[in-house]
Amino acid sequence: MLTREIQHLPDFIYPIDEWRLVEKRFYPRLLPNMETLFSTANGFLGIRGCHEEGSPVYQSGTLINGLHETWPIVYGEKAFGFAKTGQTIVNAPDGKIIRLYVDDEPFDLSKVKLLDYQRVLDMRTGTLDRHAVWEKFSGKQIRITSRRLVSFVHRHIAAIVYEVTLLNADAPIVLSSELASVQETQAPGADPRSNRTLDGTVLLAQSNYSRDYRIVQSYRTRSSGMTLACGIDHVLETQCLHSDQCCSDDGFGRVLFSINGQQGKTIRLIKFMTYHVSRSVPAAELCERSDRALDRVVGHGFETLLEEQRQYLDDFWELADIQVGGDLATQQVIRFNLFHICQASARAESVGIPAKGLTGTGYEGQYFWDTEIYVLPFLIYTAPRIARNLLLFRYRMLEKARMRAREVNQRGALFPWRTINGDEASAYYAAGTAQYHINADIIYAMRKYVEVTGDREFLYGEGAEMLIETARLWTDLGFFSFKKGGHFCLNCVTGPDEYNTVVDNNAYTNLMARENLWFAAETLEWLREHKSDRYSVLVHETQLRQEEIDEWKRAADSMYVPYDENAGIHLQDENFLNKRAWDFSTTPAEKYPLLLHFHPLVIYRHQVIKQADIVLAMFLLGDKFSLEQKRRNFDFYDPLTTGDSSLSVSIQSIVAFELGYFDKAREYMRYALMMDLADLAANVDQGCHIASMGGTWMAMVYGAAGMRDYKGKLSFNPRLGRGMQRLQFSLIIRGQRLSVEIDQEKNETTYLLKEGAGLVIIHQREEVLLTANVPVTVAIKEPYAPPPEQ
Amino acid sequence: MLTREIQHLPDFIYPIDEWRLVEKRFYPRLLPNMETLFSTANGFLGIRGCHEEGSPVYQSGTLINGLHETWPIVYGEKAFGFAKTGQTIVNAPDGKIIRLYVDDEPFDLSKVKLLDYQRVLDMRTGTLDRHAVWEKFSGKQIRITSRRLVSFVHRHIAAIVYEVTLLNADAPIVLSSELASVQETQAPGADPRSNRTLDGTVLLAQSNYSRDYRIVQSYRTRSSGMTLACGIDHVLETQCLHSDQCCSDDGFGRVLFSINGQQGKTIRLIKFMTYHVSRSVPAAELCERSDRALDRVVGHGFETLLEEQRQYLDDFWELADIQVGGDLATQQVIRFNLFHICQASARAESVGIPAKGLTGTGYEGQYFWDTEIYVLPFLIYTAPRIARNLLLFRYRMLEKARMRAREVNQRGALFPWRTINGDEASAYYAAGTAQYHINADIIYAMRKYVEVTGDREFLYGEGAEMLIETARLWTDLGFFSFKKGGHFCLNCVTGPDEYNTVVDNNAYTNLMARENLWFAAETLEWLREHKSDRYSVLVHETQLRQEEIDEWKRAADSMYVPYDENAGIHLQDENFLNKRAWDFSTTPAEKYPLLLHFHPLVIYRHQVIKQADIVLAMFLLGDKFSLEQKRRNFDFYDPLTTGDSSLSVSIQSIVAFELGYFDKAREYMRYALMMDLADLAANVDQGCHIASMGGTWMAMVYGAAGMRDYKGKLSFNPRLGRGMQRLQFSLIIRGQRLSVEIDQEKNETTYLLKEGAGLVIIHQREEVLLTANVPVTVAIKEPYAPPPEQ
Repeated sequence: MLTREIQHLPDFIYPIDEWRLVEKRFYPRLLPNMETLFSTANGFLGIRGCHEEGSPVYQSGTLINGLHETWPIVYGEKAFGFAKTGQTIVNAPDGKIIRLYVDDEPFDLSKVKLLDYQRVLDMRTGTLDRHAVWEKFSGKQIRITSRRLVSFVHRHIAAIVYEVTLLNADAPIVLSSELASVQETQAPGADPRSNRTLDGTVLLAQSNYSRDYRIVQSYRTRSSGMTLACGIDHVLETQCLHSDQCCSDDGFGRVLFSINGQQGKTIRLIKFMTYHVSRSVPAAELCERSDRALDRVVGHGFETLLEEQRQYLDDFWELADIQVGGDLATQQVIRFNLFHICQASARAESVGIPAKGLTGTGYEGQYFWDTEIYVLPFLIYTAPRIARNLLLFRYRMLEKARMRAREVNQRGALFPWRTINGDEASAYYAAGTAQYHINADIIYAMRKYVEVTGDREFLYGEGAEMLIETARLWTDLGFFSFKKGGHFCLNCVTGPDEYNTVVDNNAYTNLMARENLWFAAETLEWLREHKSDRYSVLVHETQLRQEEIDEWKRAADSMYVPYDENAGIHLQDENFLNKRAWDFSTTPAEKYPLLLHFHPLVIYRHQVIKQADIVLAMFLLGDKFSLEQKRRNFDFYDPLTTGDSSLSVSIQSIVAFELGYFDKAREYMRYALMMDLADLAANVDQGCHIASMGGTWMAMVYGAAGMRDYKGKLSFNPRLGRGMQRLQFSLIIRGQRLSVEIDQEKNETTYLLKEGAGLVIIHQREEVLLTANVPVTVAIKEPYAPPPEQ
Repeated sequence: MLTREIQHLPDFIYPIDEWRLVEKRFYPRLLPNMETLFSTANGFLGIRGCHEEGSPVYQSGTLINGLHETWPIVYGEKAFGFAKTGQTIVNAPDGKIIRLYVDDEPFDLSKVKLLDYQRVLDMRTGTLDRHAVWEKFSGKQIRITSRRLVSFVHRHIAAIVYEVTLLNADAPIVLSSELASVQETQAPGADPRSNRTLDGTVLLAQSNYSRDYRIVQSYRTRSSGMTLACGIDHVLETQCLHSDQCCSDDGFGRVLFSINGQQGKTIRLIKFMTYHVSRSVPAAELCERSDRALDRVVGHGFETLLEEQRQYLDDFWELADIQVGGDLATQQVIRFNLFHICQASARAESVGIPAKGLTGTGYEGQYFWDTEIYVLPFLIYTAPRIARNLLLFRYRMLEKARMRAREVNQRGALFPWRTINGDEASAYYAAGTAQYHINADIIYAMRKYVEVTGDREFLYGEGAEMLIETARLWTDLGFFSFKKGGHFCLNCVTGPDEYNTVVDNNAYTNLMARENLWFAAETLEWLREHKSDRYSVLVHETQLRQEEIDEWKRAADSMYVPYDENAGIHLQDENFLNKRAWDFSTTPAEKYPLLLHFHPLVIYRHQVIKQADIVLAMFLLGDKFSLEQKRRNFDFYDPLTTGDSSLSVSIQSIVAFELGYFDKAREYMRYALMMDLADLAANVDQGCHIASMGGTWMAMVYGAAGMRDYKGKLSFNPRLGRGMQRLQFSLIIRGQRLSVEIDQEKNETTYLLKEGAGLVIIHQREEVLLTANVPVTVAIKEPYAPPPEQ
């Protein structure tokens, strides 16, 4: 169900451009949203698209992945095992501020007369460029341009070139370049999806110094004890009349340039910023790192940064780009989405991907299952090294996941539903701790990574240990139910659909847990049978017993999968059909998302779904359902799905494609594509929906191109449907690069293995053998679905 | 299941006495518990049994029923419709403090040498009496006696007589009588059953004055805006050398008496205290009321208070007393329990009965269903006027209950699960808002009140309006389920058992809701058919439509009652049998109550029960079950019931009696009786369990005497079982007073109608016609159970 109309950005202000997001007019009404959409980031450091002058601003944000404050979660009524420590991303000191004064009058976009204005997020150069011409009351005209980047190559570096040109008169110019702590003062809202406002000062200034246009400051977070160093440095390519710099103990630093501006002579200030954070390194050492990082980039200059940025993105697009024929708007938004995933993940090393990337503080900067289920597929196929890092990050969380399992009286490990530092931060267990499926989601992603990349080292190393502990959790959590004919049941769990919580035998959870168990058993048995040293190590380290593996298999083999014979459908959960129907006809559009308008008990009592649940299972584990079964399930569940979660429509699109519901599939896809650019979730001011963006890649590749990769075996079943003429994308499979190009008009698909020894894929029913650099073009026949796995 | 051994109070310190609670030695180890048990209260005002000298003290408590502070409930994750305002009873200024200094040395029981000590809570005089002899290092001996009462007759008044006698020497004596604000500083614990600590000063001093040994102070609560006036006044029956008094703007007042103490001459200080509270009356006016109240009682003197107190209690015991033959310990504890109900309810006018009465701040001084289901039966049969007040108090809450229903998207009215001011204060909806059965519980109690008292004026007045709105809630909440053969189902509710929350079709809830609906339909139809003006008024005021009444009947007639044919048992909830069995054999005693040791999801996932649920339904609605059915249900559910709630064992006892499980019945009864005196819930320091105390009356009357009162028709089926020789109690039925005396040895029961025109009761199978003052003795035959209602 689509509860909102897509309202495109007005194109006389935001003209469509396939490689750029363009803003042709200063448009304050959309300022909060545009700060998000114009964000520049590299997965480690993100800067919201706020203007350099610091005003007007909705929410200034300089976000460092993983830099968080902790706070004790307060419950109205506490109970045993409730998560104790909340975690919230901290706004780092704002280093991008460059205030401009001409004749001592400040340049503030919202107050001045603009003769010209344009802002561009360029997805090939990786820069945010702004151009403006300001006319003062005196008639003096000033051209201001700025170019900003957060370097993909230098993880800790961002830079700005800020140019001022007096067009028709001389005037004294002052540039005040600042580095200032920002405390959010926004009041906590009623929307559980927004961030929490931290009370009081979080960043305690530690030390600072100022020298030769450079300022370095360090901080400690009050409660989580993280250290942070921030530095700014400047190159001014103009004679400076006078400069002044200061940094104060409360963490404010400024370098002030006074210049006798002359008509026609461009004043050019290059500002370099650097950020370092740590959970263990002392602040003083981080300051030294900042110094070194600044030395390095200042020495090479801004142009070098720019070239490296361009090169990085050329490489990125080479692998990641999706091309659609003709339709520029779609072309723009798919690239916009992929670019933002790149910005969220490129340098996410030893950290996860926050739900909003580094574009806003929504969802508190925390990591969810979003990464594994929605973003990793794209990364596995286009940037496997990043995918590996993210899985490694989960592995490093394993010890805390073991502790968390103990806290909730379980064996094995339970990964946190939401977290930054590895501790469970979900304060509402019904849509948190009860979402045990996070364990299986992580294993699912790990398996896909291994199957696609062939990285069995990871599988038998970190992977095997994760498999043991997650499998243990499942067998401890469930039981063989007499009432269910001895089947293995998982009660009191919450599946992906948060409108039905703490249910018995959620089909998604049971199916995904079954895969988790089978894969654990299979992997450990392989190691045992091959008498691998690794097996002995694992037995030693985890006290693994052979009987446990048997138990995993027994539980998986007997897993209960709720099904209603009369209706001929799988049950989202055992009692789903016993619920009351939701009266959609009397629910007006403004009552969505329901969670903001109805008590949870009211929602839980009804047959109403927030997001794809069994439909997601039919995509992820599509080989376990017949096409006919998929159709029956989809036909039943799709009309009940509000799509109140941004994670829903991409999945609905994929399954609709598979079922040949092309109109629906393309409508859902369009909705997924436009989620942020058209602000369909009405909260893009809080940040981009990175998972939904990952979902759009999946909708293209798994949906329109009909790719499936069960057990790592690639098949395609292209079905663009009406309106899409062409679809081209690349995939890396076990180091080999495959280009897929679907031509709807000619009704054919061309597969080209650009690198690699050879690859067998399946096009519809038929095997296609690909050898390097030999394109193979095959006709598209009627869409075909393989029979389900027995 | 009984998870703790009963540890009686050590009888060399607390010798058993059938009318008194005696403490023969100052015993600091039990000080926290004894402060609760020695509380004096009248239902409006309560003073914990702390010593007058203010030290040693565990938790000083001067509690006024309904005097509360409000605070915004903070949620880890908030959602729509969650209760917003917490309510916590406020510790009123402590007026009982009388500090004694002899030779300037303070008298502190925990530090001085005592030659003699005794403390007695006398349940006939309604006084707390203490006697002590103090020997100083100098050899000087001082006898100190005090007598304290909270007047049942004068709702706002408490008084203390404090006597000091120098036994063997002269000495200067100072008595410092104080009135001081107390802020609890106790840290909030992890136990959800304890109270919340309020931050900062709650009572803001308003005005004060001091004159002629009298001090009156007034306060305003910071957030809830209630007003409070407290006054103390003194009569000193000794020549006073010097007196000094002060009261400060921060709410501290003191009258200090300096006396040249002479050997053998008793110094006697009488202190009167008064408390007035209001939600609307200005503080200044409350001060005037305090003045007048003090004038009145000081004029009449302490002896008058004492006489009135004795008279009140004589009347109370005349109606309320239960006598058991021979067994002094049982005799003491049943009276102790009844006395504490009296103290919790006697003057509870325009307020409810807090879960802990006025003996402690546990459960934040809030009102629960405890009152209606556990305390009202006793009051209906022994103090119908008080019962009426309590129901009237609920009626006054109806408007807020209507608003609350709207807040959670429902029609009709939803009474708060926990409250002081009528607003829902439960911060955990799964064991709060979801306990919709509160609506039916209130109606059940109202119906019983009407049936036993014959007060149809209440039924057709306040009662009818409550019936309309509660019935509306039920029909709006539930639905006719296709999957359940068109039966009316109530999903996502929590029954009495809080170890199984948010379940579908909780049998207790469905059965109680059915009664609620039927009774609403019956009552409203009676009014309509009798063309009562009241009906027109109700139609006008509530927009009642005839179709609604039909809908209530249809819902009730089709109510789904979950039953398992194979097991032959009713299901506590629809899915109860699908749960995993709890492994009781590996759960050590110290892991109880489970809620303090297991995550809610772990508990919810298992077949484990906190408190009687379906067993409670089998008691309250016993005519809806056959004896055989009751046996099957009890046999199944009783072993799964931990009794982690103090509300459980009394009910288990009653049903065990009915089933002839006498050993079990008496063991449960003993456990219920000793709940507080033996601190079986391990938290009596937080206050007495008033509901459990009411449960002991029910265990005696409904359990041992086998009374049933379905539709107001009284029947008895005495079955004391071994060990209990005699049981005598009184009941008021429609203004007539019935005495019931069961003699186990003679195997006969004597019924005596002491007042009234005549009454027909059923003794076992047979009708017995009683006329005034003619005792009828009948033999006890084999226990008999009537067949269930068709």
